[in-house]
Amino acid sequence: MMPPMAMDDDTGLPRPPVIAVAPVIFPQVVELIQSAGGVIGSLSEADAVIWTDPDDPEGFADLVVQSPARWVQLPFAGVDSLALRGLLDDRRLYTSAKGVYGPSVAEHALGMMLGMARGIVAYARKTSWTSPDGVAALGARRLTGQRVLIVGTGGIGRSLARMLEPHEPTILAVNRSGTPMPGATRTAPVTELGTLVGQVDWVVLALPLTAASRGLFDRAMFQKMSRQAWLVNVARGEIVVTADLVEALASGGIAGAALDVTDPEPLPDGHPLWGFPNVLVTPHVANTWDMAVIDLGARIARNIIAFAHGQPLEGVVDVNLGY
Amino acid sequence: MMPPMAMDDDTGLPRPPVIAVAPVIFPQVVELIQSAGGVIGSLSEADAVIWTDPDDPEGFADLVVQSPARWVQLPFAGVDSLALRGLLDDRRLYTSAKGVYGPSVAEHALGMMLGMARGIVAYARKTSWTSPDGVAALGARRLTGQRVLIVGTGGIGRSLARMLEPHEPTILAVNRSGTPMPGATRTAPVTELGTLVGQVDWVVLALPLTAASRGLFDRAMFQKMSRQAWLVNVARGEIVVTADLVEALASGGIAGAALDVTDPEPLPDGHPLWGFPNVLVTPHVANTWDMAVIDLGARIARNIIAFAHGQPLEGVVDVNLGY
Repeated sequence: MMPPMAMDDDTGLPRPPVIAVAPVIFPQVVELIQSAGGVIGSLSEADAVIWTDPDDPEGFADLVVQSPARWVQLPFAGVDSLALRGLLDDRRLYTSAKGVYGPSVAEHALGMMLGMARGIVAYARKTSWTSPDGVAALGARRLTGQRVLIVGTGGIGRSLARMLEPHEPTILAVNRSGTPMPGATRTAPVTELGTLVGQVDWVVLALPLTAASRGLFDRAMFQKMSRQAWLVNVARGEIVVTADLVEALASGGIAGAALDVTDPEPLPDGHPLWGFPNVLVTPHVANTWDMAVIDLGARIARNIIAFAHGQPLEGVVDVNLGY
Repeated sequence: MMPPMAMDDDTGLPRPPVIAVAPVIFPQVVELIQSAGGVIGSLSEADAVIWTDPDDPEGFADLVVQSPARWVQLPFAGVDSLALRGLLDDRRLYTSAKGVYGPSVAEHALGMMLGMARGIVAYARKTSWTSPDGVAALGARRLTGQRVLIVGTGGIGRSLARMLEPHEPTILAVNRSGTPMPGATRTAPVTELGTLVGQVDWVVLALPLTAASRGLFDRAMFQKMSRQAWLVNVARGEIVVTADLVEALASGGIAGAALDVTDPEPLPDGHPLWGFPNVLVTPHVANTWDMAVIDLGARIARNIIAFAHGQPLEGVVDVNLGY
């Protein structure tokens, strides 16, 4: 679906699109719209909306749904907070930041993997020298040559595959259709997930949260994983059943977990996940605003120009799939 | 210098080399020698010695110096503990493990860099959720696109350049002669080190410890570094003047440090370096025996075969340069 160009009612010629910024009007976004050839306007007259708050689905429901805008640019990659509430419809085009954040999130995932594999996280918690024998006890090992299953082959998965490449891994990937991911030895449809999780050293979650992926990693899935395998979650906390993860960790069913997202979020003080030596929790920081703003700004500017010229936009959301 | 082949006194024909293992005779090393076509013998009759203890220069002085062996294989990459005591001479050929450990040590260096850049080390020390604002306060950032100076262009430096490549860095390198390192935008001779350290976000030490490199990173060098720059040391602790590093950290002269090696080693409990939030110390584990044993074994086997056939060996030490 391609958004129609904005046309002048009097002349019948293309005119610069009127673009609203909501709910917060950041001066940088205004500047970006103007430099890309757009005209700032109110929601009630807008051809398009740049939505600027990743955490305000209620505001979105109140404001955007009333607007005549034919295109809405969202500032985040995972649109689950809107899609799962039915706030996205097919009356207009939605674009997300999917793909933009891939390199940053993948870099964080790689950092967590190396941090766990090499004992860096364990040593960060020490204030005393420990002999290399101590490392062996920690299970420290090289990442090089290990087997990695990447669940989800969007921007994060593809970036991670590229970043892993110098470490000579075997990369398996899973997505909905089994369409091959560049860099993967094999890409399988998600129906094979239960088999593949048992064949790898690392399971990295990089898929969108949808009705189908919610709770996908539950007790049954953890039981299929190798006891030597690590779980890395840089996607959404709700893809994992937290109580089942805690049980798998407590029973030694998996080697450990590195989580940038949790369910619930924030993870409360005193939660069992804070207590495992083989667990790392980072507070949803694989992509912070500072890290993303340049790439996101460039993406939005390209989309505004494309919108003004009736060209295809980047990051179009499939409302039925929910991402 | 090429070691002469072992010849049979009676027939004048080549015979299998007699190889001694000292000071500890590991069964795996014996097996490796035999499978490579060597014959196990004592030090006093050996054509070659496989030295198996990385931490026993006194034993080396007592045992190896007496041997008629024409070739000595050392189990470590940095031969400073022997070279700086004058225990290596040009009467025979010494080979080290240099290059073998490069990928493992580089992987650890990358893990430490990502750990510091992305706040992973800081979060590993927390047991409470912190908002993304907290990350900004930690100075968390992407490694992607940063400027890295690699000091030393041997196996570690080259491996690190390859592992950094997907992170689109600007890599500067320094070595003795300025001979270009693959992957570096520019390789300069060490005489330019004092200028280059001021132009980068990361300074990674991956050079051998020699009389020339001892204490190379002192107060004057730290003053030339950017206040936003990180020091990573995966080489030898003595390349850094520890008191001057502590001073640079305490005064905010550099952004922080990730150290797999320290001076002294082990780093004593209560040492100031344990107390900085922006310092990570790992206890000389960038290459543990478990991580190295397969690659080192393969290198030694190739060298035994080459020695038996009078071919060039891998990892030959330049006794004058000390590495």
